[in-house]
Amino acid sequence: MKAKPDCIVCVFRQALDSVKHATKSKKKHLMVMRKTARWIANASLNRTPANLSRKLYQIVYHVTAVKDPYRKIKETSNKVAMQILPTMEKKVQKSKDPLKSALKLAAGGNIIDMGVGVKFNITKDIPTIFNYKFAIDDTERLRKELKPGKKILYLGDNAGEIVFDIPLIKEFIRKGVKVVFAVKSGPIINDATIADARVAGLTKITTVIETGSNDIGIGWDKVSKQFLNEVKTADIIISKGHGNYETCDERPENFYFLLKCKCHIVAESLHINVGDIVFAHKTRLHK
Amino acid sequence: MKAKPDCIVCVFRQALDSVKHATKSKKKHLMVMRKTARWIANASLNRTPANLSRKLYQIVYHVTAVKDPYRKIKETSNKVAMQILPTMEKKVQKSKDPLKSALKLAAGGNIIDMGVGVKFNITKDIPTIFNYKFAIDDTERLRKELKPGKKILYLGDNAGEIVFDIPLIKEFIRKGVKVVFAVKSGPIINDATIADARVAGLTKITTVIETGSNDIGIGWDKVSKQFLNEVKTADIIISKGHGNYETCDERPENFYFLLKCKCHIVAESLHINVGDIVFAHKTRLHK
Repeated sequence: MKAKPDCIVCVFRQALDSVKHATKSKKKHLMVMRKTARWIANASLNRTPANLSRKLYQIVYHVTAVKDPYRKIKETSNKVAMQILPTMEKKVQKSKDPLKSALKLAAGGNIIDMGVGVKFNITKDIPTIFNYKFAIDDTERLRKELKPGKKILYLGDNAGEIVFDIPLIKEFIRKGVKVVFAVKSGPIINDATIADARVAGLTKITTVIETGSNDIGIGWDKVSKQFLNEVKTADIIISKGHGNYETCDERPENFYFLLKCKCHIVAESLHINVGDIVFAHKTRLHK
Repeated sequence: MKAKPDCIVCVFRQALDSVKHATKSKKKHLMVMRKTARWIANASLNRTPANLSRKLYQIVYHVTAVKDPYRKIKETSNKVAMQILPTMEKKVQKSKDPLKSALKLAAGGNIIDMGVGVKFNITKDIPTIFNYKFAIDDTERLRKELKPGKKILYLGDNAGEIVFDIPLIKEFIRKGVKVVFAVKSGPIINDATIADARVAGLTKITTVIETGSNDIGIGWDKVSKQFLNEVKTADIIISKGHGNYETCDERPENFYFLLKCKCHIVAESLHINVGDIVFAHKTRLHK
């Protein structure tokens, strides 16, 4: 999807939030805002919102030399998520439809997003997700595709969030489906890296690979050959969150998008409301 | 008070909101955002937030040629406010302390602010204001000053909001205090002009003057001699809302600030929380 003028407001909000996490220096806060403005003045919107935002995180890094401003938040998110995972996993297992419940939990985990400017409380918010209904629900379509020997490429999103992907991945594995889980190759916002996947215990459950870049979502011109090979050989690709949706919605592969909608631009694009959860096969998009 | 890097995010949010109210042209939306970015890249923050924001509204005007993007909203605000005024006025009159209740109602009216990006619903929100306590409360100080023959200069804020200033102004007049009510000399955001004061019925109750400029808050270098004369001769000045606070907090006159706080920069400045109402004498500031 393409960025809109609204995304420019979001760019400045992200720039401020990110530099505040990187340093207390007010001079540097202002420097980042000014450099971002200088760049935005001539930036093309003929790109994804994810790609538009990418640059500001580079500016924050150039100004502050802090490579991972959200490191502490990522650590806390993993920790808190792992504390409530056992309870959430039991809820999934005891539910009437564990596949759908696991999909909901994974969508719920998508609140843990430092890029969108929406406050979250993991302990309070996550358990409420089982009361939600998917605004777009392609669970039945997926269910039919889940046959032994099939392979799912799972595009992970944020630290903490990936903990809540575990019950869903276990559901897939239980059905004889192979899962390859992809994380970013370096820090960007609070996106999960291989270190987070290790902490979350994902590496013990399934194969975890890196995308080859630390773009927001998938930077298709920068990903590794290994990652591209996984994309080509996957029967199903599950894409978590805003960034992956923004950068994969026009791909030809068999994509399902799983997210909690946190901004009106993504909401408009999917014809849903901010706050909704969706599990949408790619055929539902651009209609 | 001085602008902070946070105000830059607000500048872009206001630019987008204002240009969207002015035109549906997405080209012009983007043009405004880019021009705002070009300007912000070199703008000094050694000025008030109100003064910083002023420029973006000029950019919207230059790009769209729409002089008053919030005209319809101002008309609706006046209309809806006038519908509930009789009920609100009765509540004030029947309360134990009509002066304090009238101050609260006037502070409550300050939700009607299109500059701060906080949604409001006049009919639902205003009646709840009587349950609030002032986070800073200088009612008793004011009460002592309200003596027959004294003169209050009342710096009005937004269309619709000025309707809820009426019971307070009537309280002053009942106590033999003379009131001069100031509005903007031209459209800026949804600030009240002389046309709004007429619609609201303020011109029938008291003297209404114009500031001489259409700055956000008070542009002290641009106001008229008549306005400056009223400032000099007033015994008490009551300043409504964010813009007036931001531009009057360092003035030497006998200022009282009456507002509902809608942003964290004003909240920090007053050592209060977003959402609080305040009625603060100038001696309470900068401590």
